[in-house]
Amino acid sequence: MNEFIKKLTPYLIKMRRHFHQYPEAAWTEYVTTASIAEELKQLDFNLYMGKEILKAEARMGMPSNQEIADNEKRAIAEGVSAEWMEKMAGAFTGIVAAYDTGRPGSHIAIRFDIDALPIKESAEAGHFPADEGFISKREGFMHACGHDGHAAIGLGVARFIHEFKQRLYGRFTLLFQPGEEGGRGAKPMVEQGLLDSADYFIGGHIGIHSLKVGEIAATATKFLASTKINASFYGKSAHAGLSPNEGRNALLAAAAASLHLNGITRHADGHTRINVGKLEAGSGRNIVADFARMEIETRGESTELNENYMVPEARRIIEASAALYDVKAEIEMVGTAPSEECSKEWVERIQESVDESTAIHRVIPELTMGASEDATYMMQRVKQQGGSATYMIFGTPLSAGHHHPRFDYDEAVLPIAVETIGRAVLKLQQ
Amino acid sequence: MNEFIKKLTPYLIKMRRHFHQYPEAAWTEYVTTASIAEELKQLDFNLYMGKEILKAEARMGMPSNQEIADNEKRAIAEGVSAEWMEKMAGAFTGIVAAYDTGRPGSHIAIRFDIDALPIKESAEAGHFPADEGFISKREGFMHACGHDGHAAIGLGVARFIHEFKQRLYGRFTLLFQPGEEGGRGAKPMVEQGLLDSADYFIGGHIGIHSLKVGEIAATATKFLASTKINASFYGKSAHAGLSPNEGRNALLAAAAASLHLNGITRHADGHTRINVGKLEAGSGRNIVADFARMEIETRGESTELNENYMVPEARRIIEASAALYDVKAEIEMVGTAPSEECSKEWVERIQESVDESTAIHRVIPELTMGASEDATYMMQRVKQQGGSATYMIFGTPLSAGHHHPRFDYDEAVLPIAVETIGRAVLKLQQ
Amino acid sequence: MNEFIKKLTPYLIKMRRHFHQYPEAAWTEYVTTASIAEELKQLDFNLYMGKEILKAEARMGMPSNQEIADNEKRAIAEGVSAEWMEKMAGAFTGIVAAYDTGRPGSHIAIRFDIDALPIKESAEAGHFPADEGFISKREGFMHACGHDGHAAIGLGVARFIHEFKQRLYGRFTLLFQPGEEGGRGAKPMVEQGLLDSADYFIGGHIGIHSLKVGEIAATATKFLASTKINASFYGKSAHAGLSPNEGRNALLAAAAASLHLNGITRHADGHTRINVGKLEAGSGRNIVADFARMEIETRGESTELNENYMVPEARRIIEASAALYDVKAEIEMVGTAPSEECSKEWVERIQESVDESTAIHRVIPELTMGASEDATYMMQRVKQQGGSATYMIFGTPLSAGHHHPRFDYDEAVLPIAVETIGRAVLKLQQ
Amino acid sequence: MNEFIKKLTPYLIKMRRHFHQYPEAAWTEYVTTASIAEELKQLDFNLYMGKEILKAEARMGMPSNQEIADNEKRAIAEGVSAEWMEKMAGAFTGIVAAYDTGRPGSHIAIRFDIDALPIKESAEAGHFPADEGFISKREGFMHACGHDGHAAIGLGVARFIHEFKQRLYGRFTLLFQPGEEGGRGAKPMVEQGLLDSADYFIGGHIGIHSLKVGEIAATATKFLASTKINASFYGKSAHAGLSPNEGRNALLAAAAASLHLNGITRHADGHTRINVGKLEAGSGRNIVADFARMEIETRGESTELNENYMVPEARRIIEASAALYDVKAEIEMVGTAPSEECSKEWVERIQESVDESTAIHRVIPELTMGASEDATYMMQRVKQQGGSATYMIFGTPLSAGHHHPRFDYDEAVLPIAVETIGRAVLKLQQ
Repeated sequence: MNEFIKKLTPYLIKMRRHFHQYPEAAWTEYVTTASIAEELKQLDFNLYMGKEILKAEARMGMPSNQEIADNEKRAIAEGVSAEWMEKMAGAFTGIVAAYDTGRPGSHIAIRFDIDALPIKESAEAGHFPADEGFISKREGFMHACGHDGHAAIGLGVARFIHEFKQRLYGRFTLLFQPGEEGGRGAKPMVEQGLLDSADYFIGGHIGIHSLKVGEIAATATKFLASTKINASFYGKSAHAGLSPNEGRNALLAAAAASLHLNGITRHADGHTRINVGKLEAGSGRNIVADFARMEIETRGESTELNENYMVPEARRIIEASAALYDVKAEIEMVGTAPSEECSKEWVERIQESVDESTAIHRVIPELTMGASEDATYMMQRVKQQGGSATYMIFGTPLSAGHHHPRFDYDEAVLPIAVETIGRAVLKLQQ
Repeated sequence: MNEFIKKLTPYLIKMRRHFHQYPEAAWTEYVTTASIAEELKQLDFNLYMGKEILKAEARMGMPSNQEIADNEKRAIAEGVSAEWMEKMAGAFTGIVAAYDTGRPGSHIAIRFDIDALPIKESAEAGHFPADEGFISKREGFMHACGHDGHAAIGLGVARFIHEFKQRLYGRFTLLFQPGEEGGRGAKPMVEQGLLDSADYFIGGHIGIHSLKVGEIAATATKFLASTKINASFYGKSAHAGLSPNEGRNALLAAAAASLHLNGITRHADGHTRINVGKLEAGSGRNIVADFARMEIETRGESTELNENYMVPEARRIIEASAALYDVKAEIEMVGTAPSEECSKEWVERIQESVDESTAIHRVIPELTMGASEDATYMMQRVKQQGGSATYMIFGTPLSAGHHHPRFDYDEAVLPIAVETIGRAVLKLQQ
Repeated sequence: MNEFIKKLTPYLIKMRRHFHQYPEAAWTEYVTTASIAEELKQLDFNLYMGKEILKAEARMGMPSNQEIADNEKRAIAEGVSAEWMEKMAGAFTGIVAAYDTGRPGSHIAIRFDIDALPIKESAEAGHFPADEGFISKREGFMHACGHDGHAAIGLGVARFIHEFKQRLYGRFTLLFQPGEEGGRGAKPMVEQGLLDSADYFIGGHIGIHSLKVGEIAATATKFLASTKINASFYGKSAHAGLSPNEGRNALLAAAAASLHLNGITRHADGHTRINVGKLEAGSGRNIVADFARMEIETRGESTELNENYMVPEARRIIEASAALYDVKAEIEMVGTAPSEECSKEWVERIQESVDESTAIHRVIPELTMGASEDATYMMQRVKQQGGSATYMIFGTPLSAGHHHPRFDYDEAVLPIAVETIGRAVLKLQQ
Repeated sequence: MNEFIKKLTPYLIKMRRHFHQYPEAAWTEYVTTASIAEELKQLDFNLYMGKEILKAEARMGMPSNQEIADNEKRAIAEGVSAEWMEKMAGAFTGIVAAYDTGRPGSHIAIRFDIDALPIKESAEAGHFPADEGFISKREGFMHACGHDGHAAIGLGVARFIHEFKQRLYGRFTLLFQPGEEGGRGAKPMVEQGLLDSADYFIGGHIGIHSLKVGEIAATATKFLASTKINASFYGKSAHAGLSPNEGRNALLAAAAASLHLNGITRHADGHTRINVGKLEAGSGRNIVADFARMEIETRGESTELNENYMVPEARRIIEASAALYDVKAEIEMVGTAPSEECSKEWVERIQESVDESTAIHRVIPELTMGASEDATYMMQRVKQQGGSATYMIFGTPLSAGHHHPRFDYDEAVLPIAVETIGRAVLKLQQ
């Protein structure tokens, strides 16, 4: 194992930096998916893409048709072949790699999320990707959550399976999932049935907490349930000087909604979150704004808190804010993730499996997640049918928090993650 | 005159519809300016463009360099010749046409504004430009204030001067002004000295009030003084689930500013206006927004009310809203127009000059404007140096208010406007 | 006349200072009414009080039964006799004095409002009533609008009629109206029919504008129509630490309503006003507030603007603010005044009538009121039945604006007002 | 023990109902304190009151002098003797009862809080105190948190010590604390040194969670640290119709502060709370409000979260809200409680001590408090000097949540609480 990992490391770093330069937001991961596909094609996997892996109607939070078309043009311009483009046409991004050993054994599903964020990456000196010349080539988009690393780790795990295939039993499914941000990609994969026969599920994230490289958490806890909501307000434009009273002001309705949403009362039963992350309203300064669009998310320590408290509160406030300014509100649910718990058995399993590692020197049994992850949909499905699921955290110092323009991590975490998953897989063969 | 106007009318309609299809917002009127230039070239005018007519540093509310470059590319793609592009390079749009009769007489300046608005035109049946096939070809932009008509009227007035030149004395300056919306284009023309020797100033607007075709106002009153303000808020992004408290929320600061600006107390001394017409904030739903941008305008019945009450109130509220959410505010003044009054003598002058018209059947001495117009800068300059200024309103029914996606007017107002100005010019020769 | 006025002046000042010391808010003017009654008893008037002069069900904005009871106790403690108390029992304050000359002639109604405000008077040096020792004896209440002077002027006019009765014809009705503040007292007097046979109506106010003593306005214009609204919010209390989510927060609903009401868009057709003047919410800091009460007023340059724009906007905003916080709103209309115009004939009448005065040296034909006055109900009624009405302004410098804790005026305005009304009455005899 | 408790029960109920009828808010517990004093006088305790038990300058959140005077008058009217009134004069309420067995042993301090809340009690049928005729006799005040029970339990514990004195060693201090609501009374008792020699501290609360009678928690956890803040805004009054722009609106500043305070971002490190529980602003509807007063509290799961996050956020928001409306803010800290933890040893101690009880059938080791309690000041002091502290919860079903107008509990909890404390005391003798 050590030898394999050592040889693999430059590849992981190369791929991570490649992905980092081509960040693509949810449902537009054309270049990313194609790069992964090209890599996987060289190994012994059956590849599945498009509608085979995503239930079309379960996809949420889709870009506009215009955005999809623009991104497809961009992907072609950036060199994605017609073969791959055809499979992904219409925002069916992501890829699934399956390998059947032919020997009886369990079915292990492992998930890697691959999307980036609409954040403008820092170009300042001292920001590692800037200094090293692999900063984002797409202004306004950035791998600010480490999914570039996740994609690279996935390719590493694929190589591990390929390399160790003689020692393995049963079946393997590697899910390179689009649209984790916004809770959009896991559900359509689950609903397509990809996890239906899985006995074990492994997911994970690099960073999150300020752990050191070599420290990992066997399980994560406190996944916040989350719902992603788009709200639009439609009013009536008017000349702001001549006839302001003839307008119905959608911008003010959205501003009011932002403040009042932000004031949803804290709940005694557990942590909740509310964020209006994006707001666009109005077309010009001397026109009463006739539209506004907001991107909102709610979270709760439990699915109950999120879905039965935060979401109804948000709905009521959006409607009432529209009424305040006599405009019309439209509410669309565009993403969601439940809360879920890891199966307890993984604590001992991971501790034992990495026992002989020289790189992994500390296994924390359970670490608070404190964020949302739609991997919970996959965990839920696997557990529902009697399987067992975990979600690990792979420690690395961070130069700035997740979703920050200067977010970065120590690439030494990449081989650690591949090794941890590899050793867990081997352990499951026993 | 009647014969001339009759012959001119199809040309006015043709040009108006042409301009309507190529709406261009302030400082990007490349196609519009070039079309005007092409028309004027055929007549006996000296043409002036670029830095000859606009004091560079007096221009306000400029688009970004990117937007300027994009629009220049667009203009070239739409067929504007290199000759014109060179003169306008860097957002120096607009054109001035001068004619000197060679005979002693007064200097008459006449102004036509030519910019459009960032409004998406209605494509519904019943909207005349849609029905007649001359709807905007630039999605998201529209001549929703009638400046397409103003440009056509300007060309009509140029033809009038050309046609009647034997009967005219003194000098004529026709100013095709960019950037009236936002109060951006008049000041740099005035500061370039274009009005410095003018004895008379004529400006005007079609529509405004629900007059009938054939009804005009000899003078307009109650121009609201106005200031255009851009406010930006800079906070700190953070993961909205993991560490919301580490963010500093620029979106909420802007939302608060919007509501509190809107609540600036009414003033006992006269009418005031406040509008936050555009707001953009944040990059994604799960990120605490680290920036927000707002486009604001204040107005006052007097320059005093606007500049000494509304603007300082707005400044204080923007700063305090930033303090509420611990973010940084930047305030930029991007446009302005004073209040001004027409010279009283024009009431009688216009009444007498149209006395023999068969088309103009009613002259209202004075009509309330109720909006802002940076023509007031030109009026101010001409009056300051002892000249006399008016701003007329040319009646036409409107299908929807100014700045509305279904704004339209009766094209019969176009020849009426040319005739009114023509007759006023003739009257001034006596 | 000059002799009469000269002799009257010390009496006017004495009475004004007396009223100033016993300020009583709307519907609690027991001491004030009784003092007026005592004075009038000495003259040749028939006095009317209680339900004779106020239609019970037309009274609006009543104090609570507890407040009425407390004030009646107070009035008795301050020496009001049982005779007067009986007539006023249940908040039927105010008094009407009628005099019939027995000679044919017109019926002239003259109105004086007598109520004070819930404002704490300044006790600082330099505040004239404090310096002169006639500051309010009721903490929290103050004659901050000059109605102490109006009551004194009314007594002066009564003495004038008494003194000049041999020269007078027709009938006179002096209305000492309760509850002008809040637009509460005029309507029940009008609906009781007191103005039904009046040919002329005279009302007026001291101060308002910064005129000098000796300057008066023959008519006032731009009475703002006004509506007085009470809004209550009912939520649910909860322990703010243990179970904040179980509460429904009426305080926040009221706070939201305050801000959003304040943001009602300005109207192109004329001036409007909105004020939330009083807000009380919640019972303790660690309890989610389960109630809130607000006192609101709207105004409009026209009755149309007030009643068809401001009031419906206010209603919608109050309801939507309740919805924002899931509480219940109750809206109560507690006062109202229409806009009205003075009859034009008074300009010449007043100018001629004061022609020989040595004290009144300037008559302004028309002065903008800019405030609301329920005298407009009386003006409306008199004009409706063919009569003629005016509302004059009696100039005096003010030490601070109306409704300010340091409000005061020059008492020299008191004889001026009596003289003006007296001369107008004499003029009407001709 | 069983016999003693059985005999004691009617007394507990009688006393609880007595206290319930005379609810008194913080620093005005004159009648309550006197009633306790009268009861204790009959037993073998030394009683301490006034400045002996409260460090004057450590008292926070005092009523106004007027309120203190009014309450002292009321207490005298309700029959409190001059002897007691003298000791309590100036809001020095509360009483401490000390008993020294004369035998060597530890010093046990037990605390009972006795204040009520400014809540209007429900008089509806079905509300037990209403049905049974012991509803509050002071409108607007109510024992809505169970401190009437705590006072009765304290008297029961006093009787227990009196009864069992032959079996006891060491010293006992019973603290009947005023002003727990608002975190006002514990600190001045602690700073007066009353806990300085205590080896053990016992506090507790009835209700809180929906436990059954007979269920108790040996320790409580998650006391929220809390700070109580008064904010005042001072603006400038003006006539809302005539000159609204001359006012500076304190009501709107307070409304803005309420909303923006309510929106203080949730913190990733733990639970926080914010409540604006009371707001009073303005004097009348047609006057721009020149003052506003707010009662606020912040809480945090840790003292750190409260004092270093919530309080500075609240300060900034209050100041910025004042700046929004150009008014002046004054901030006063009027109460505070740290977070604290119970000593772990009490879990086993309580479990063993009630082992033989027939009434107490379940001991929960640790229960989340979720609220604030200034008993934490006493716990902190005792632990700092090497002692050991607990805070127990005595289960009872509640008819409505704490601080609700229909709050009530099963009186069967009263003997349970006395028995629990009694058995713990006996256990400490071993």
